[in-house]
Amino acid sequence: MKQIDLNADLGEGYGPWKIGDDAAMMRIVTSANIACGGHAGDNSTMFEALSCAKENGVSIGAHPGFEDREGFGRRRLPLTMAEVERLSAAQIGALCGVAALAGTEVAYVKPHGALCNWAAEVADVADAIVRAVVAVMGSDAALLAISGTELEKSGLRHGLRTYSEIFADRGYTSGGLLVPRGTEGAMIHDEAVATQRLLGFFESGLMPTVGGEPVALKAHSICVHGDGPRALDIAGNLRAALETAGHAVKPFAASIPA
Amino acid sequence: MKQIDLNADLGEGYGPWKIGDDAAMMRIVTSANIACGGHAGDNSTMFEALSCAKENGVSIGAHPGFEDREGFGRRRLPLTMAEVERLSAAQIGALCGVAALAGTEVAYVKPHGALCNWAAEVADVADAIVRAVVAVMGSDAALLAISGTELEKSGLRHGLRTYSEIFADRGYTSGGLLVPRGTEGAMIHDEAVATQRLLGFFESGLMPTVGGEPVALKAHSICVHGDGPRALDIAGNLRAALETAGHAVKPFAASIPA
Amino acid sequence: MKQIDLNADLGEGYGPWKIGDDAAMMRIVTSANIACGGHAGDNSTMFEALSCAKENGVSIGAHPGFEDREGFGRRRLPLTMAEVERLSAAQIGALCGVAALAGTEVAYVKPHGALCNWAAEVADVADAIVRAVVAVMGSDAALLAISGTELEKSGLRHGLRTYSEIFADRGYTSGGLLVPRGTEGAMIHDEAVATQRLLGFFESGLMPTVGGEPVALKAHSICVHGDGPRALDIAGNLRAALETAGHAVKPFAASIPA
Amino acid sequence: MKQIDLNADLGEGYGPWKIGDDAAMMRIVTSANIACGGHAGDNSTMFEALSCAKENGVSIGAHPGFEDREGFGRRRLPLTMAEVERLSAAQIGALCGVAALAGTEVAYVKPHGALCNWAAEVADVADAIVRAVVAVMGSDAALLAISGTELEKSGLRHGLRTYSEIFADRGYTSGGLLVPRGTEGAMIHDEAVATQRLLGFFESGLMPTVGGEPVALKAHSICVHGDGPRALDIAGNLRAALETAGHAVKPFAASIPA
Repeated sequence: MKQIDLNADLGEGYGPWKIGDDAAMMRIVTSANIACGGHAGDNSTMFEALSCAKENGVSIGAHPGFEDREGFGRRRLPLTMAEVERLSAAQIGALCGVAALAGTEVAYVKPHGALCNWAAEVADVADAIVRAVVAVMGSDAALLAISGTELEKSGLRHGLRTYSEIFADRGYTSGGLLVPRGTEGAMIHDEAVATQRLLGFFESGLMPTVGGEPVALKAHSICVHGDGPRALDIAGNLRAALETAGHAVKPFAASIPA
Repeated sequence: MKQIDLNADLGEGYGPWKIGDDAAMMRIVTSANIACGGHAGDNSTMFEALSCAKENGVSIGAHPGFEDREGFGRRRLPLTMAEVERLSAAQIGALCGVAALAGTEVAYVKPHGALCNWAAEVADVADAIVRAVVAVMGSDAALLAISGTELEKSGLRHGLRTYSEIFADRGYTSGGLLVPRGTEGAMIHDEAVATQRLLGFFESGLMPTVGGEPVALKAHSICVHGDGPRALDIAGNLRAALETAGHAVKPFAASIPA
Repeated sequence: MKQIDLNADLGEGYGPWKIGDDAAMMRIVTSANIACGGHAGDNSTMFEALSCAKENGVSIGAHPGFEDREGFGRRRLPLTMAEVERLSAAQIGALCGVAALAGTEVAYVKPHGALCNWAAEVADVADAIVRAVVAVMGSDAALLAISGTELEKSGLRHGLRTYSEIFADRGYTSGGLLVPRGTEGAMIHDEAVATQRLLGFFESGLMPTVGGEPVALKAHSICVHGDGPRALDIAGNLRAALETAGHAVKPFAASIPA
Repeated sequence: MKQIDLNADLGEGYGPWKIGDDAAMMRIVTSANIACGGHAGDNSTMFEALSCAKENGVSIGAHPGFEDREGFGRRRLPLTMAEVERLSAAQIGALCGVAALAGTEVAYVKPHGALCNWAAEVADVADAIVRAVVAVMGSDAALLAISGTELEKSGLRHGLRTYSEIFADRGYTSGGLLVPRGTEGAMIHDEAVATQRLLGFFESGLMPTVGGEPVALKAHSICVHGDGPRALDIAGNLRAALETAGHAVKPFAASIPA
C-alpha cells in the first residue's frame, strides 16, 4: 500500500470575493497551499482557511506569490533576487503568524503561479525562495516542488525535506517536465484517461510522455485544482479512485522525504 | 545610575518614498518600532530597517498599524476585534519572517497610530492585540505601551513583559495620561523645557501635570520622533542630556520588567 | 402605461474575482451601477462592464465607493468632506475615461454601500458627492438616490436631474425611509409578497409601512441585487411581473425628472 | 525670440509621503506632468498639484504610469495592449475628473517611467496609449513625447498635437535618441556644460552626439527633474539662462504644433 498526498491551492479569496469552495475541498485534499496575502488572501481569508485546514486535519502549506492581486500572481514581475527572497520571507512569516493565532502550524512551502514557474526554470529564483524558507522555517522545513524542476533541485541542495508533485491532467516530456501549456499534448482533458494514467504510473513508476519513452518521476503529491465548476467532483473522484486502487491518501509532510 | 531606553518609529517609507533618516536615527535610539507593511513599509523597507537596527545594536519592535497607507495608519478604521487580532498576527508574523532573513529577531511589539490610540482607550482592542502577540511571539514576549493605558493593563493582565513609555514633548493629566492633542498644555514646544522636565521626572519619579499635583509614572522608554526637520537634533540632544545626567541609555527589552 | 427602471450594482469583480453574472443581469436590468475601481473594479472590469452595458442598451451609472476593496466599500471610513469630493471626482472621471474608450458614456451617478448610506443620512456628505458630480459631469447630470434621503435632497437642491430608487425587498417607515437592517420588518423575504407590494405601490402611489399608514414615495427605479444565488431569477421574475402588469421597463435616465 | 517650455514630473507623493517641493517647482516650470494615482498620487495629491498648477499658470499634463506604487512605475509590467489602453484611459479620466473639481483642465498627456520607455520603443504600446488619449480627450488633444521615439511617431500618425521633449542632462546618439543609462556618455553631470549645450542647440538646431555628427532634433519642451536635493536650483538656473539668452519660457500646449 502506497501513500500519496492530494494538494490544492486554497484560501484564494480576497475581501468579499471567493474562489472555489474551500470547506468542501478541505474534506478531499490532504494538503492545502494557502495564499499569504500576496497574489490573494487577506488576514481574515488566511485565518479562515487555516482554521478550516486545522479542523479537517489538512496539512498547511504557505503559498507565496507575486504581490499582484489584479493579476492573481500569474504575471511574471521583474523582481530582483533580493526582492524574491524578502517577498517569500514576509509572506511565509505572515501566514505563520496567523497560523499561530489559529492554533495551528505551517508545515511546508509551495510557491504560486508565475513565481512557481520562474522558480521551476531559474536556479537563482529557486535559491532565493529556498533561502527564505530556511531562514523563516529552519533547515528542516518541507518544500513542495514540481517534479524535475530547479526548485526541487534547490530544495534538495539546501537540505530541505523536498517533496515532488505531479499533475493528473498535464502531459509530460521525455525529460520529465510538463509539456508547456499551449503545446500539443499539454492538457489531458478526459478525466477518466487522466485517472487511469495516474494509477498506471503509481503501478509502474513510469509516466507516459508526449512522443517518447515513459519516464520515471518522483511523486509525493498530486496537485488538483480548487477552482472551476467541476473542481470538487474531479478531486473527489480522483481520491476515490486512488483509495479503491489501494493507496493511502495522506499528507506528504508526514512522510519520509525522497 | 538609571537605565532608560529611547524608541522611535522607523522603517516608515514605502516603495520610493522615505520618511526621516533611519540610518542616522538608529545611531541615537536604542529601540526601533519598525512598520510591518500595514500603515507603511514593504518587504524591502522592512529588510533594510531590520538590517540597520541589527548593525547598530538597536532593539527591534514590530509596529503593526491599520492597513491604510494613504492615511498612514492615523485614521481609526471600523475593524472587528477578530480583524484587529488577525491584522496584528499577520503583521508581526511578516516582520518576524523578514527579521529571520536579515539574521535578527523581533524583541517587542508596539502598535502604531490610530490602532495604538484605540488600544490605549478600549480594553477589547488592547486584548485583541495582546492575544496576537502571545500567539505569535509567546507568553514571555515584550510589549511597549503608553504609560497608564488600557494596552499597558492588558499586557500586564496577560503576563507579557510590559514596558511603559513616556513622551518628552507632551503634557500629562493628574491621572497620568497624555493631555489630548488640541487641548491647552498638550504639547511642550520648548525643547530645553521638555528635557529639564524629563530629567526632573527621572530624579523624583513625579511628572508635572496640567493643573494638578505631579503624578507618579512608570517609564522604561522615551518616545522620540523620527520625522520632522529637527528630529535628529532633538533626539540627539535628549540622549546627550540623559547621558550627562548619568543615565544609561539602553534597550528596555533587556531590562527587568515592571 | 407607466415607465419604470431596474438598476443593479454590476462590474463588481476585481482581477480574477467575479461577483454575479454581469452579462446575464445586463439582459434584465435597464441601468447598471458600475464600480469605478474604488470598492471594486479595475481597468479591465470597468471596460468589460461598460462594453456589456453598451451592447445591451443598458444605461450606465458611475458607482463610486470608499477605496476599500477588502471591505467592499461597506465600512464607513473617516474621510473629510474634501476627501469625499475628490474620491467621487476621481472615480467618476476614471469611469468616464474608460467609457470613452469603450465608445459609450456615463449617464448618471449613484454612490455605493457605506458611502451611499452616509450620503443618505448626512447633508454635508451628500453635498460633497453632488459637487463632484456637477464639476465632472455638468449641472445637467443625473443622480440616482434612495427615495427620501439627504442625497436626493442635495441633488434636487443643486439642480441635478435627480431620480429616486426604491427596493422591492425592504420595509419602509412611515417617514418614507428604509427600515434599518437588523430591525423587525427590514427585509421582505418572500419574493411573491415583495412583487405584489411593489405592483400595489405602482397602482396607488402608496407604500405600506411598518406599523404606520402607507406613505407616498417617489420611484423612478427599482434596485435589484446582482449577486446571490437567485439574483437572476428574482430580477427576471420582477421584470416579467412589471411588464405583465403593463409597465414599460426602461432606463430612467431618459425619463422626465421629478 | 524663441519659445520653449520646461516640464517636470510633479504630484508624485502618496498619502503621507512627498517627493520634491511641488509648490516651488510650479514657480519655475511651465508644464507639470501630474501623477494620476497609478505609479504615484492619490485623490488629494492630484487635487493639490492641480490647484497649485492652476494658481501658477502652469500647463497640466496627465502622467499615467504602471499601477505599481512600490516600484514607482519604473518596472516594466507584462501588460497586454488592451490593458495599456484601459490603464491610460482610466488614469487620464481620473485626473480630468479631479481637474474639473479643481476648476482647471488637463492640457496634454505624457506617460511615465517604464510605460514611457516602453512606448518610446514599441509602436503597439505607443498606439495603445495614443488611442486612449484620442478616446478620452479627443483627436485634437496634445501629447508630449521624447523626441525621436515611437510615441512621438504614433501621436503624429494619429493626428494629435504632438510635442517633443529633450533633456539637458542626457547624451544623444547620432540617431537622435537618448544614450541608454549605464552607457558611456548617457549623463551630463556638469550643470554648466549641460546648459551651454542646450543654448547651443537652440542657436543651431543641432544637438551634439556621442561619437557622431550633431543631429537635428525637435524640441518644444525641456524635461527637468522635480526631485533630488538640487532640483530647484538646477531648474531655476536653467530657466534663468534660457531667459537671459532671449528665450520665452512658456507652456508648449499653447504653441503651434510641429
